[in-house]
Amino acid sequence: MKILIINGPNLNLLGRREPDIYGHLDFDSYLVGLRKTFDGRGVTIDHVQSNVEGEIINFMHGAMGRYDGIILNAGGYTHTSVAIADAIRSIDVPVVEVHISNIFAREEYRRISLTGAACHGAITGFGLDSYRLAVESFLA
Amino acid sequence: MKILIINGPNLNLLGRREPDIYGHLDFDSYLVGLRKTFDGRGVTIDHVQSNVEGEIINFMHGAMGRYDGIILNAGGYTHTSVAIADAIRSIDVPVVEVHISNIFAREEYRRISLTGAACHGAITGFGLDSYRLAVESFLA
Amino acid sequence: MKILIINGPNLNLLGRREPDIYGHLDFDSYLVGLRKTFDGRGVTIDHVQSNVEGEIINFMHGAMGRYDGIILNAGGYTHTSVAIADAIRSIDVPVVEVHISNIFAREEYRRISLTGAACHGAITGFGLDSYRLAVESFLA
Amino acid sequence: MKILIINGPNLNLLGRREPDIYGHLDFDSYLVGLRKTFDGRGVTIDHVQSNVEGEIINFMHGAMGRYDGIILNAGGYTHTSVAIADAIRSIDVPVVEVHISNIFAREEYRRISLTGAACHGAITGFGLDSYRLAVESFLA
Amino acid sequence: MKILIINGPNLNLLGRREPDIYGHLDFDSYLVGLRKTFDGRGVTIDHVQSNVEGEIINFMHGAMGRYDGIILNAGGYTHTSVAIADAIRSIDVPVVEVHISNIFAREEYRRISLTGAACHGAITGFGLDSYRLAVESFLA
Amino acid sequence: MKILIINGPNLNLLGRREPDIYGHLDFDSYLVGLRKTFDGRGVTIDHVQSNVEGEIINFMHGAMGRYDGIILNAGGYTHTSVAIADAIRSIDVPVVEVHISNIFAREEYRRISLTGAACHGAITGFGLDSYRLAVESFLA
Amino acid sequence: MKILIINGPNLNLLGRREPDIYGHLDFDSYLVGLRKTFDGRGVTIDHVQSNVEGEIINFMHGAMGRYDGIILNAGGYTHTSVAIADAIRSIDVPVVEVHISNIFAREEYRRISLTGAACHGAITGFGLDSYRLAVESFLA
Amino acid sequence: MKILIINGPNLNLLGRREPDIYGHLDFDSYLVGLRKTFDGRGVTIDHVQSNVEGEIINFMHGAMGRYDGIILNAGGYTHTSVAIADAIRSIDVPVVEVHISNIFAREEYRRISLTGAACHGAITGFGLDSYRLAVESFLA
Amino acid sequence: MKILIINGPNLNLLGRREPDIYGHLDFDSYLVGLRKTFDGRGVTIDHVQSNVEGEIINFMHGAMGRYDGIILNAGGYTHTSVAIADAIRSIDVPVVEVHISNIFAREEYRRISLTGAACHGAITGFGLDSYRLAVESFLA
Amino acid sequence: MKILIINGPNLNLLGRREPDIYGHLDFDSYLVGLRKTFDGRGVTIDHVQSNVEGEIINFMHGAMGRYDGIILNAGGYTHTSVAIADAIRSIDVPVVEVHISNIFAREEYRRISLTGAACHGAITGFGLDSYRLAVESFLA
Amino acid sequence: MKILIINGPNLNLLGRREPDIYGHLDFDSYLVGLRKTFDGRGVTIDHVQSNVEGEIINFMHGAMGRYDGIILNAGGYTHTSVAIADAIRSIDVPVVEVHISNIFAREEYRRISLTGAACHGAITGFGLDSYRLAVESFLA
Amino acid sequence: MKILIINGPNLNLLGRREPDIYGHLDFDSYLVGLRKTFDGRGVTIDHVQSNVEGEIINFMHGAMGRYDGIILNAGGYTHTSVAIADAIRSIDVPVVEVHISNIFAREEYRRISLTGAACHGAITGFGLDSYRLAVESFLA
Repeated sequence: MKILIINGPNLNLLGRREPDIYGHLDFDSYLVGLRKTFDGRGVTIDHVQSNVEGEIINFMHGAMGRYDGIILNAGGYTHTSVAIADAIRSIDVPVVEVHISNIFAREEYRRISLTGAACHGAITGFGLDSYRLAVESFLA
Repeated sequence: MKILIINGPNLNLLGRREPDIYGHLDFDSYLVGLRKTFDGRGVTIDHVQSNVEGEIINFMHGAMGRYDGIILNAGGYTHTSVAIADAIRSIDVPVVEVHISNIFAREEYRRISLTGAACHGAITGFGLDSYRLAVESFLA
Repeated sequence: MKILIINGPNLNLLGRREPDIYGHLDFDSYLVGLRKTFDGRGVTIDHVQSNVEGEIINFMHGAMGRYDGIILNAGGYTHTSVAIADAIRSIDVPVVEVHISNIFAREEYRRISLTGAACHGAITGFGLDSYRLAVESFLA
Repeated sequence: MKILIINGPNLNLLGRREPDIYGHLDFDSYLVGLRKTFDGRGVTIDHVQSNVEGEIINFMHGAMGRYDGIILNAGGYTHTSVAIADAIRSIDVPVVEVHISNIFAREEYRRISLTGAACHGAITGFGLDSYRLAVESFLA
Repeated sequence: MKILIINGPNLNLLGRREPDIYGHLDFDSYLVGLRKTFDGRGVTIDHVQSNVEGEIINFMHGAMGRYDGIILNAGGYTHTSVAIADAIRSIDVPVVEVHISNIFAREEYRRISLTGAACHGAITGFGLDSYRLAVESFLA
Repeated sequence: MKILIINGPNLNLLGRREPDIYGHLDFDSYLVGLRKTFDGRGVTIDHVQSNVEGEIINFMHGAMGRYDGIILNAGGYTHTSVAIADAIRSIDVPVVEVHISNIFAREEYRRISLTGAACHGAITGFGLDSYRLAVESFLA
Repeated sequence: MKILIINGPNLNLLGRREPDIYGHLDFDSYLVGLRKTFDGRGVTIDHVQSNVEGEIINFMHGAMGRYDGIILNAGGYTHTSVAIADAIRSIDVPVVEVHISNIFAREEYRRISLTGAACHGAITGFGLDSYRLAVESFLA
Repeated sequence: MKILIINGPNLNLLGRREPDIYGHLDFDSYLVGLRKTFDGRGVTIDHVQSNVEGEIINFMHGAMGRYDGIILNAGGYTHTSVAIADAIRSIDVPVVEVHISNIFAREEYRRISLTGAACHGAITGFGLDSYRLAVESFLA
Repeated sequence: MKILIINGPNLNLLGRREPDIYGHLDFDSYLVGLRKTFDGRGVTIDHVQSNVEGEIINFMHGAMGRYDGIILNAGGYTHTSVAIADAIRSIDVPVVEVHISNIFAREEYRRISLTGAACHGAITGFGLDSYRLAVESFLA
Repeated sequence: MKILIINGPNLNLLGRREPDIYGHLDFDSYLVGLRKTFDGRGVTIDHVQSNVEGEIINFMHGAMGRYDGIILNAGGYTHTSVAIADAIRSIDVPVVEVHISNIFAREEYRRISLTGAACHGAITGFGLDSYRLAVESFLA
Repeated sequence: MKILIINGPNLNLLGRREPDIYGHLDFDSYLVGLRKTFDGRGVTIDHVQSNVEGEIINFMHGAMGRYDGIILNAGGYTHTSVAIADAIRSIDVPVVEVHISNIFAREEYRRISLTGAACHGAITGFGLDSYRLAVESFLA
Repeated sequence: MKILIINGPNLNLLGRREPDIYGHLDFDSYLVGLRKTFDGRGVTIDHVQSNVEGEIINFMHGAMGRYDGIILNAGGYTHTSVAIADAIRSIDVPVVEVHISNIFAREEYRRISLTGAACHGAITGFGLDSYRLAVESFLA
């Protein structure tokens, strides 16, 4: 099973950015542990990141035929991007949305997820552990 | 680790109710398998269900001092119940919200979660597997 | 043909409660006449009432396999209860909504019916005669 | 007792128009049966139809002094016509609103009834049987 | 100076219709007095009425080249008719809007005037005297 | 008959202020002509102006027992002042609202009149002639 | 191929009405050229106009079995008429909506098209050339 | 004078629940002092609590004929319960609403009180002292 | 203990103004009794009134260092005045809001209190007795 | 005449993406036919596509001085992009908006076109034929 | 160059009022430094303050012919005062709006500036330094 | 002191784009003068521009550790970009927002600034001089 994690805007700053909300761990360090967790279970995990909305769409298109599942954290585009939501609907790879913080508990404009509406499911609020739960969801 | 699953209105009909949306498995049958999955990991899982909003609040109050975590599927009360959200904030047991269907992808009034705003995190859209992922989240 | 009338909050006070809006007759007295009207037409009419939202859901679940139709006056829950609307969709007994007063002619928040959206049909504004018309609708 | 049925826009196409929603029977055929149903009970039923909002108002004005009740299906004007609602309030003949489909269960803009707010009562969702129930309501 | 009064829906029932709001005088009787008031001042006043939105538009188009001013009481169409507002903008005869009751003091949906936005000015709330004031406005 | 004209904020700049909207005539010059118009008809017209919302209320209170009618142009307070509207309701002198420009044809926030809702009637859009029409309305 | 152009309110004044928005050409003159353009391509073009909403519905009903396509410019009814939208859905003749001005670029209330939602497609903003493009669309 | 205090959802946790907002005193301890305060003034104070919306309605119905006044803290139901508001209107015992925290100063959805609209008056923001003030209000 | 009562717009007319809503007693007469009630409890009560929003702010600023508490009835400014709410937040004297009528039960725009959001607490609906309860609140 | 077609997000997947809505033909194949259609009429058609909002803006800027017209299908950016709408207004090349599906008939958030408001005109709902009609519009 | 600073409600308390938001410096002390900063550049700076909305309007009117620019901090009136915005439009002195805190980052009702819409420009969020920048803007 | 100016979409066309709103000067020419103004004050000013939302985020991330301040004109992204606002919050370089035109005075959707809410302060409406004032703000 091959899984692609697509991280959106500002997630490259994880660990340095608003640590009260997003924690002190950077994503690459986290990824080392995540891969280890699923080592014996036949899961390959790749990771890409971009701050550009259209690049995220390109990543999704490129995943077709190459990945069994996508884990998407679209960051600030989650709440506004019709185009990414359309991309999710355009491809045949199942997509699971994750959020580090609990979007239901934040500012009003972060409580609705346009992209999540096009996803298979969503996991929100477990810190970086949301990514592990998303991988788990593909193993069900 | 002791976990309490609290199911809300109409979830007693699971398996018989709108199977296109909620599936054909009833919750008790599912629970047998769920307990088996976590057998060797020291997890005890109890289950209660009620159609009465205030009973759900009673269940939450009663869980204090007796459970390490609550998994809540508040059903139709998810989107309207200030009282259940207040109950979640009133107790010191962490609560994780689950939904069988993806609430972001359903009717407009189901896209906002009042109760989820008071929870630790939320998992939505993975069918009954949402419950397993919620248990996983407590084991992190 | 067996029909169950489910009356919601405050309808136990009928005849005493805001008589300008809801009239001076209590429901039990009305029921005597209603049963007489349909005496010769093979219709049995049962009646339950509760002020508790979840009890109304329980009544609905309990009606499965035992009644051919439900007449529901959900009172103040009509306009807010996603859970009762879900219950109506969860069972295979047809439900007809009735209101004593004309909800279209009342306060703005009473003009929308969440529960009515899940019903077979709705009859509003004919005083207690709305119940007779609902029984008639099952005899069509 | 003399009753006037006023049908609004597109109801002249009944039976041919969106039959999944409105059924396959045309109104004139239905009317034959409806009159028969009430034959022995001293009810005369007349029928007019127009696609023109103002004509519906004319019909209402013309009914004063000539009919004991009006059954109105204002079709698409139900949700937008202040003028028809004013007409209902302007005359002294009681008006009952009917709808073939259940307007609470349709598009958002069809869930509010401006004209119904001015009527005695409303019956919605019973197919053409809504008309029979409306006649019944005048016989109470 | 030739002035055309165009009355809209239900104004043909003036004097009989909701007299608490609209008064007991019918329009034709009022018109006799109105003409007398302006007798010596060279004003001719014609009057047409229709319940049909499109007829009101026809009256407006027909007034071009024949009248120096139009007094419009569009009744229930005042608040919803883009088409009549477009008609007012389409012709070169100045239009003054009148209302018998004070629309600012009535139901919320009567407080906005779509047609008034296209008029020269508006006079609202003086009973039938609103028409006299409108004629006065043309004599300024 | 004694009439008090109360002008609100910025009307002291009439003639100098946005002349495309409000014209080139200052109010005092206009008043000379207005008084002349009603000379022979037993009408005394007084005039006060203030930019202070509470002063306008004071003027209204002070008019009780001294004036037969008030003509109010509350300027920018028209659309926001609950307090002035309450003042109109608090006194027993009839108040007529006037506006120089047609408020229905201006910015969205100028189309609703809170103060007009408490007045006897309103006249809007006739330039300074709105004041003459208001005086006329008291002579009906 | 037989095509019916249905023009709605105020389009009879084309060429005379707000020429800055709608141009200086009247529709009949335009029609001569339009027919010529499609002369050799087997297209017959008929034209009707009415200011009455219900008449437009009548035209649509009447087109069934007699025309292969309808080009509709519903004018001011475009944005408010549930009844015309229902008519479009009621008939089996494909309808294409046209607008002379670009409705997306006009007042907020002109940016939504209720009738367009029921049409096959819509063409907006090309002046009278919108009609030619609509005919072209039927020839695809 | 007999007064019934009805406390709603989560108020059984008072003293333990979000003490920054609701304080550290539990209600029973407070009640001892409250009764003492009114000892010599002929006031009997009873107290019931439920987390169930319908039970609160039952308490209200049961108070008829037995109490001279009700002090209601409907907790999270304050802002959403049409049914409790209807219950208040259904009984002839005067009801005073109290809140421990100042609802005007909290989240937007807590600033409107549906139940308070049906009460005699409301007291909000004085901590537990709100209850004493409510008793005082009955002694006026 | 020194308390300042600040009354806002139109409260100088109390007893004469809309007596069905606000009662027949003027404030000065009421004040005599109020002072007597608290005579033996060491409370001095001063009273100021203004119809001017900014004067109310001046009163508040002036109360710093001279009063232990303010009782504010901001009348019509309650619902719109950001400036008075800012003033309450700007001073270190605790402020209690009072209303004679129950603002939750009145027009929609009177149900929200901007000023109350900045106050310590609010008392609404007890007629003039609201002021006595407010004094009581300072004695807790 | 040189025309540039700018396709936005996900249109590179045309033919593979949600074919029920967008059809089975990919854009390059379609383009071959489109160019052939206009072969003899002196029209050159270029085509670019990007998923990146800013790239679409770059394409537009680059078209100045090189193309006589732009055909824009901004996909999911149509409804949210102030920046693309600004770009359209920034350049002197006329832009025509096209949509494959009828945006008026889709989800609510797709019914408004921010970019269309800045265009010369818009063509929506004719499948890929919308592009041909857009080219036709430039030949008028 | 003569500049008038007009400060609105509660700014007389600067330095004492909510210092976390507005700082510890009072305005008069700040003004000494501000004048010094611009000493050698030929700028005279006057300062007035009022808590009364209408006084602010009076200050503006009085500035005509006497000042080259106005710096306005309308405080809480910024977001609600149509009357002050009208005053800005009524005079021929350019007005620059300043705010000490960043209004975009505060409560929702403080993010819109009615008065700013009528100003030449606005400077928000730089603490008292906003005033210096405003003076700078007049020197450009 | 090192300052980075980040210009967003369409600002590369400055001087050519809608000159009535944005002026005739291109940004590079302006920059020459701007640098000269601050020559002797130890300020270095760099400039980057992109039409791509994600590139603007990249510029911001890249400025960390290299610049003392950022001046951001996010153009059309100002009103919609949660992602850029998140980027501003993610970095430790202070950001000042500038706009050439006064956004409070433009279309409704341009009056709210999502990005400005995350900035230190904002300067809007001074034409290109807004940039100079922003540099000034860093020198305070």
